[in-house]
This record gives sequence, structure tokens and C-alpha cells, in this order.
Amino acid sequence: MPVRFDPPSGTRDFLASEFEAREAAFGIIKEVFARYAFEPLQTPAFERLDVLMGKYGDESDKLIFKILRRGEHEASGEADLALRYDMTVPLARVAAAYGSQLPSPYKRYTIGPVWRADRPGKGRFREFAQCDLDTLGSASALADAEVLCAVCEALTRLEIPRFTVLLNSRLVLSGLLSAFGVPDELGPDVLTSLDKLDKLAPGEVIAELTGRGLAETGASALVEALTAPDSTEQVRAALKSIEEGVSGLEETDALLALVRSQVPPDQIAFTPRLVRGLSYYTGAIWEVTAPGVPGSIAGGGRYDGLIASLGGPDVAATGGSLGVERILALRPAPEGRPGRLDVAVTVMDDELAAASFGFAAVAREAGARASVYLGSSGKLGRQLKWASDAGARFCLIYGRTEQAEGRVTVRDMASGEQTPVPAGALQAELSRLLRGG
Amino acid sequence: MPVRFDPPSGTRDFLASEFEAREAAFGIIKEVFARYAFEPLQTPAFERLDVLMGKYGDESDKLIFKILRRGEHEASGEADLALRYDMTVPLARVAAAYGSQLPSPYKRYTIGPVWRADRPGKGRFREFAQCDLDTLGSASALADAEVLCAVCEALTRLEIPRFTVLLNSRLVLSGLLSAFGVPDELGPDVLTSLDKLDKLAPGEVIAELTGRGLAETGASALVEALTAPDSTEQVRAALKSIEEGVSGLEETDALLALVRSQVPPDQIAFTPRLVRGLSYYTGAIWEVTAPGVPGSIAGGGRYDGLIASLGGPDVAATGGSLGVERILALRPAPEGRPGRLDVAVTVMDDELAAASFGFAAVAREAGARASVYLGSSGKLGRQLKWASDAGARFCLIYGRTEQAEGRVTVRDMASGEQTPVPAGALQAELSRLLRGG
Repeated sequence: MPVRFDPPSGTRDFLASEFEAREAAFGIIKEVFARYAFEPLQTPAFERLDVLMGKYGDESDKLIFKILRRGEHEASGEADLALRYDMTVPLARVAAAYGSQLPSPYKRYTIGPVWRADRPGKGRFREFAQCDLDTLGSASALADAEVLCAVCEALTRLEIPRFTVLLNSRLVLSGLLSAFGVPDELGPDVLTSLDKLDKLAPGEVIAELTGRGLAETGASALVEALTAPDSTEQVRAALKSIEEGVSGLEETDALLALVRSQVPPDQIAFTPRLVRGLSYYTGAIWEVTAPGVPGSIAGGGRYDGLIASLGGPDVAATGGSLGVERILALRPAPEGRPGRLDVAVTVMDDELAAASFGFAAVAREAGARASVYLGSSGKLGRQLKWASDAGARFCLIYGRTEQAEGRVTVRDMASGEQTPVPAGALQAELSRLLRGG
Repeated sequence: MPVRFDPPSGTRDFLASEFEAREAAFGIIKEVFARYAFEPLQTPAFERLDVLMGKYGDESDKLIFKILRRGEHEASGEADLALRYDMTVPLARVAAAYGSQLPSPYKRYTIGPVWRADRPGKGRFREFAQCDLDTLGSASALADAEVLCAVCEALTRLEIPRFTVLLNSRLVLSGLLSAFGVPDELGPDVLTSLDKLDKLAPGEVIAELTGRGLAETGASALVEALTAPDSTEQVRAALKSIEEGVSGLEETDALLALVRSQVPPDQIAFTPRLVRGLSYYTGAIWEVTAPGVPGSIAGGGRYDGLIASLGGPDVAATGGSLGVERILALRPAPEGRPGRLDVAVTVMDDELAAASFGFAAVAREAGARASVYLGSSGKLGRQLKWASDAGARFCLIYGRTEQAEGRVTVRDMASGEQTPVPAGALQAELSRLLRGG
């Protein structure tokens, strides 16, 4: 029976160097989020099917990986569990399950895989890491500001070059729809069309809006206000007498004022055309873009009604998500491939094996990553090649001569220089050498 | 539609303190394994169904979580993917997929969840962490010794009190079966019965053996040899003229000699009655037990034919697994619940919010986990209660008086002592205070 050995479509095996690059990035993110006093949360890989279904819309529901019932029920062909599709629905479940056991406000971050049966493609996976941070139970703009600053600080620490934050408010968008006379029932569709202004030409969006039933003059004026060079001034003027719009402007201005000390003014801008696709946002919304990356590398906003609608408690909420897979692709490559070993130890024959094994332990005591030769060749040249391939900085050679003299030969793999060291002084000498002393 | 909010049966949500305790333990394990020059590997949560099925035996196959096909194929009720059941089959797939791209020998560790649809119970989960380390491509006893020493060092560093290593060899067991005249065809069943000697009385095991078709005298003599106080001497004597048995004794003696410098002699013992259930072991086998824990907390051995039988290359292999869930339960509890915050910052009114937000940033610059108050109360008492509940060591109070004086009041939450600090000197002062200076 032939079996394919590549990982399943849309998934990846992470061998050592890739795994370590990912862990390093995750470590930076965790460290930043922890300093903002967000606490970690880890939920199971799967949830009950009814917890997930109907939460993401019909199209997305089709992308959920469902788990077949087990035992006698397997034959039914029915599913009762499903793999985590995002981190927000599990958060709502946790908020409902633990309620008052959680701190208030509950500030949590989570980093882990989610699974979506999307068609795999370049940079698009079926198993990919998602990194969310959210604050439940605070209506304060400070909570939005914390999330946004934590995301920006993480991106800075991840050495993402020159990213930009686009900031808007759902209230600004609602106000604009009123100001330009969009009937309430067309609102969601109009926002969907406006969301394409970063991809389509203004004329194409106007055509789409009129196709949706908007009058041509209104559609043109709306798109003009969102795309003109003086867009923000036009929008501010248009919203002057619209209560919701004024609140939205105050909200974005307050948020800009709060983050000013931590995000440089040329890296953040009020951007009235920013919609963000998801319909659940209720207040401030933001996205982070980076040169050369289509779409965004992070995004978030306030979503006060969502947790209740997902079955959780009725709490104010704001949060953000880092597009970690895109971010990982933007990170500068590590300098050179790190060696697997600091200290390699030869094993010249069976009777010397126990002593060599002990020297590897001594090297580890000195803080080194160390290993004895595990192959079957008794030839020094062969063993030195292994040490070199593994990237060892030093090789400890211990043969009959060394045994007779009570010494170990320490070979510097870069220079080839060899130094005899008394066995009893080996740990101190290796500590010194590994410090580069 | 009522929805249950607990995690699915047999799975757990890890809130902050539990998550951090687990991460700390995993961090210790990773650090030890890395110093032994094992490299990390992470494979996807699911594999193609045909990669997993038929690898674990019929009973275990039933415990595999299978994933329903998607889209138009969902209605078929068929599965094409399945959640990882262990870490060994994915390792065999990786060895087959990447072959010569992997170092030789390939020493890897992996820590992550596996999923088994076992009946959940106390300490038995359907999603649980597994931690494996294995060396592929070395037939040397040094490879077995490395794995065993790495496991023992990890357990020591994890502060597991007084664990014991039981060591045996499959060759010793084969030799014993010959020495006591067990017919070849009864061998596997006899080993299954002998495996129960740690749970059942010798008489019960003898009864089981005779039930399987062994002669009563042979069964009694075999059980006597494995349970007598001088068991190891009896076994050595019985194996004297059996070639396979002699090899097995040499193997265990060699391994004992290698690990002697790192595992104290009272913590490791040749234990001829150790069988380890899995039939795939071919050489040295070992288990680690700890007082008060039924069963083992770690185990492993040499399994030279397994990787090939799983579809991988034909390589010598040895490895071990830490029972991390049991080990986590044995770990000493952390001293006191750590606070979520080092520095809490009051927000006395909206106009002071931006300044307070900035002081939280200053505290983070000083290395603290810091957060502003995100609630709606303007009362100092309420905000101090929040700071206290969050376990903050210091609270920064910034009201109209402080604003007028250009200062921040730093309150020591333990003593209640309050010190005015000029805003410009805050970072240095907090750095000093956090260092405990």
C-alpha cells in the first residue's frame, strides 16, 4: 500500500531551524503581551460541534474540520466535534464557563494553531498559527489603546520594517452612511463595497454601489469623500451634524491621543475608508499594513456585542489579532544556520566509550549542547567530519594516548588548533572557551 | 439552543496559572534535551488517515479521532484525515519524507498534544501532552544511554522526588523464554502475562500462564526466577548457556556502565521482570517509576525495526517518552499565586487618562508588567482594590494634585507607603524598586 510521506495538504512539518525561528517570534510576542499584563489562555484543539457551527457564516462553516463520532456511532457518518476555527469563539465559551473566576477585566492572549479547510496556496495554510489578544469587560478607550500599543510594540520587537496603522470607527462609517443618505437596509452591502476601495478603482466601486441600488450622485460623493487627498477633512465636515459620526470622530481622536506617546504619528493615521470585513465590530477598528505585503499583518477593534451573541456573557470587548504567518515571512532571516552542537566528543573504541560519554556530560555541565559520536566508525577523520557537519565549535578527542596521559584533546573546529587539557580541568576550560574567553 | 460551556469531554482549558506551570515544565524539558543535542520537531495535528490506521492494533485504532471529508464529500460520512495518536508514527513519516535532509543520526524531541478517544477518567485525558525523544540511525548503546540520561536529568531538574529506573532487555526476555522451555508460538502471550507481575500476585500469573498452555512446573520456575529476592542472580544463572540471553545481559551491563556516572546506582536496577507492553522493542527497555504513582512516569527502549514497519527507512532506533501529565501532577506546587501585575496605574479622570497610559508605558520600559485601570470608577479606593486583586506590587497614583506638582505617587501595595516621585525620574525609580533595591 503506497503511502505519501509529505504532510497533509495545507499543513507543514517544522524541522529544527524553522521551529526555532517560529518559537523565537512567539517568545517575543508573549513577552510583550505579558508586560501589558495580558495573561495566557489555551483551549482544546477541538470544540463541540454546536459551539462552532453557525458562528462564522455559511461559507466559513463549510471550512470547519469536523470530527467523526466514535465507536458504534462512527458508522452514522456524523460529526460531534470540530477543530478550532478561530480563537474568538473559544474565548466566548471560556468567558461563559468560568465567569467570575476570571479577573475583571479579563485580558488574555493566546497563540496556537487553528484549522480551516481553505484551498491551500502560497502563504495560505489549513493549519496555521493565530495570535489574539483581547480585553473583555472594559468599555474604556484605554483598553483599545492597550491592545493597539501591545500589537505595535510586538511588531517593532519582531523587527517588522515600517508598518502603518490605519484607524477608523464603525460609528464614523455609520455616520457617513447617514450623511450621504444611504438607506439603512443598504448599509451592510454598501460597507462591503466600500471595503474594496483598497483593491478596486473608485469608478468600479461606484458602479458596484449603484448596482446595489444607491443613487449615482450619492455613490460618487461618498466614494469621493473617502478617496480624495483631503479625505479626512471632507469626512469631518460631512459628519459635523451627525451625532453618531461626531461620537466616532471623538472616539478615533481619543484613541490617537492615547497611543501618540508610543506609536509615532507617521505610523498611524485616521483612515475613514477602513471598513474591516467582519460585521461584528461596534467601535474603533484598525489594521496594520506593511510595505510589500498585500492585505494586513494585524487587525482588530471593539466588538461589544459579540461575546454575548456567541453564547458568552454580555461584556464590552476589544481585541486584536496578529497575522503571524505573514509576519514570520517578513522577519529578517537568522544569520547563518546555527550548529546543532557546541561540543562533539569522539568515541575511539568501545572501552573508551564510557569515559567519552562522561566527558559529554562534563561539557553539558559547562553549559554546552554536547553529544558523543553515535556512529560505528573508529576513524578519527570520520568522527571529525561528523563534528564539523553538526556545526560543533569544539571536538573533544579521547584516544589511547589521551587515556594514558589522563588528558583530553580539545580541538577548536574553526582553527584546527588542538590543546591537551587534564581531565579534571575540562569543565572549567570548556566554560572559559564557550564564553569566548 | 442550550450550549454547554465546559470544554469537550476529556479535554481541558488551561487558564493562566496552569498554563504557566505547564510551560515552565516544558521549558525545563526542552532545555535539557537541547543540551543533549536533540533538535525539535513539530508535525501537524492531523495526518492522512492511511498513515495512522493499522499502526497501533485494532483496539487502539478505535480510539483514533477521524476527520470527516469536506465539501461535497462530507455527506459520504467518510474520514480522510485523523488526529495524531502518538509521536512515533509522525516521526516515521518525517524520516521517510526528508531522508538525507535530516542529520545522521537524527536526534529529535517533540512536545505537543496527542488525541485518543479513551474513556476519560482521573488523570486520563482525550487531549494530552506527549513528550518524546528519539535517535534514529544509531545502533550504539551510547544512543540508548543518552536518551536514558536525558530523561533522568529532565526528571531531576523537574524536581521529581526519588524516581527509580527499571532496566531490562528484550534479548534477556527472549533468552528466558528459551531457558524455561516456552514454545516460540506462546512467547508473545507469555510476555503479556509476565508484564502483569507488578500488579498481580505470582500465583495469579502462574495460573494465567498455565491457562495459556504452559506446563505448571515451567510456569512456576519462570515466575520464581523473576520474583525471588535473588531474581537477578537466578536469571543470570539461567541465561548462562543461552546465546541471546548472554547478549541481553551484556547489553544491560554495558548500558548500566555508561549511565553510572550520571544516574546514582540506587536509582537504577536491572529488572528482569520488566516487559513493557509494546511488542516492537528489540533491545534495551526501561521504565521510570516514582513513589505514589501507579505505573510509570517515563519509559522507552530500542526499536530497530519499527520505523521501517511504519513506512519509514530501515534504521536502528532508540527513544523514550516522558509521561508529562503524570509528571506535571507530581511537580511541587508553585509558591503562592503569582500576581498578574507588577505595576498598576490609576486613571482618575478622562483628562488624566493619556498621562496615566504613558506612565504604564514607562513602567513597562522599566521591565514591569503594567496596566492602567480599565474600569469606569473614578474612586481611588475602588482602583486600589483592583490593583490589590491583581497582585500589583506598586500602584502609581496620578490625580490633579500630582498633575499640578509634576509628580506621580508610588504606593507600595504591601506596606501602603506612598512616595511622590518626579515624573521624569519615574522609570529609574521603578527599575530600582522592582529590583528590590
